[in-house]
Amino acid sequence: MKEIDFIERILKDLSVFLIDTYSERSGIEVSSKRDPNDLLTEVDLAVQDRIVEALAREYPGDAIAAEERDLSRNPDDPNGRCWVIDPIDGTQNLVRSLFPLFGISIALAQGGRPVAGGVIMPMTRDLFLAARGEGAYRNGARLCVSNVDAIDVCRLEIDFSGPAERLDTLSRARQIIERAGNVRCHGAAVVGLCSVATGDADAFFHISLSPHDYAASQIIVEEAGGVCTRLDGSPLLLFDNRQGVLASNGHIHRNLVSLISGHDQS
Amino acid sequence: MKEIDFIERILKDLSVFLIDTYSERSGIEVSSKRDPNDLLTEVDLAVQDRIVEALAREYPGDAIAAEERDLSRNPDDPNGRCWVIDPIDGTQNLVRSLFPLFGISIALAQGGRPVAGGVIMPMTRDLFLAARGEGAYRNGARLCVSNVDAIDVCRLEIDFSGPAERLDTLSRARQIIERAGNVRCHGAAVVGLCSVATGDADAFFHISLSPHDYAASQIIVEEAGGVCTRLDGSPLLLFDNRQGVLASNGHIHRNLVSLISGHDQS
Repeated sequence: MKEIDFIERILKDLSVFLIDTYSERSGIEVSSKRDPNDLLTEVDLAVQDRIVEALAREYPGDAIAAEERDLSRNPDDPNGRCWVIDPIDGTQNLVRSLFPLFGISIALAQGGRPVAGGVIMPMTRDLFLAARGEGAYRNGARLCVSNVDAIDVCRLEIDFSGPAERLDTLSRARQIIERAGNVRCHGAAVVGLCSVATGDADAFFHISLSPHDYAASQIIVEEAGGVCTRLDGSPLLLFDNRQGVLASNGHIHRNLVSLISGHDQS
Repeated sequence: MKEIDFIERILKDLSVFLIDTYSERSGIEVSSKRDPNDLLTEVDLAVQDRIVEALAREYPGDAIAAEERDLSRNPDDPNGRCWVIDPIDGTQNLVRSLFPLFGISIALAQGGRPVAGGVIMPMTRDLFLAARGEGAYRNGARLCVSNVDAIDVCRLEIDFSGPAERLDTLSRARQIIERAGNVRCHGAAVVGLCSVATGDADAFFHISLSPHDYAASQIIVEEAGGVCTRLDGSPLLLFDNRQGVLASNGHIHRNLVSLISGHDQS
């Protein structure tokens, strides 16, 4: 489909802008949203504006759901064509992190599910692309999830969210945190989810994601052979107003769901 | 002191080797130690051997404490000159991680404390160097810790260790995990500790580190103005056979110690 070419083109363009910006990141203007730990920068806004402008030219009839400005809401028709955008996933890491753990995420949804998606991590030049039924790729190389099939040797990517969701995260994820072979928290959903797609991680847990956080990464994981659901194992849709996201290589998914629901089947 | 120049020279040499190796990392031979989650690669051994050979030439009389081979023990004289080496800190990340979150760590200890130390993160070309009383530097630029003074907006780097230490970690760190503004777990002590030194993180918690894991990073944090102690706030020595490490920017250190010991003073 030509939409995936559009996604690739705009992600590559924006990556050049991000690389320039990051080299002078101490000068980035930062404000916070409802919570002092939830940051917004001029970069988030500039990137989103560029994507929205490009979409208005190329696909003027399509709906847009994006993180910033007043676009963070479900489309009027949840089953229609809708572009789902996170201009910077990992804004905290853009501002404060030894490693550049952030990415730009763009997906096209139809029927409430992503049908094409792309993520770029500018500083490592990693471009992830997937279209429904056509596989997932990183810089042109086909991706495949890991074959790890036991929790006690799995590599778990978990996000501890902000303080408001912290206790709930610790409670719901308690058993998987206690049992996982390795635990990592990089603080950007695109990093956690794309790690599952590449086989660098075996599972990803987040208690409260919005569609823009996971739309593109979801199809990248699924097209790499992985599984994405809600925390109870039910289907992961974009606009159902639910928030928990569990992704895995598939082999350990049922066990993860059982441990999260408190019923140990391992 | 000329030892810091030696550290700089060998870290730069080894970095070139690591960059080459990493580009073909799928071919790295991996085995595991006592625990299937604790990996050892041919790279760890090759890097350590090169450092030990260089030390034997330049400082033949000095003791060596290193992670691999049979060198992982305290020196006979814990107060004498001793080189403390971690050839690869973050071996799991070298083998499995979307981002190259690992480093080489070399310190010279005297009197049971590091007096010079260097860490290199080869893939991002970040070289950290510090000598006692002379400041800490990244690629020549002087480092200074953050000035964040409240737990609820701090960026906490925590390591969840292997499954054997997981429950203890969750128990001791419970209050700081619950309250921190942001939680990150990169799975390499050098990354967590150097993040405190650069001001990208405000605190670092690990329940069980060995001297080779923290010797170089300790002096980098301290020379950047930060504080390193045991989890109860007592002095961090290299060869006292204790294991917990707490580092911070200093401003929140007393609060962290209180929360870890279960007495909330915030």
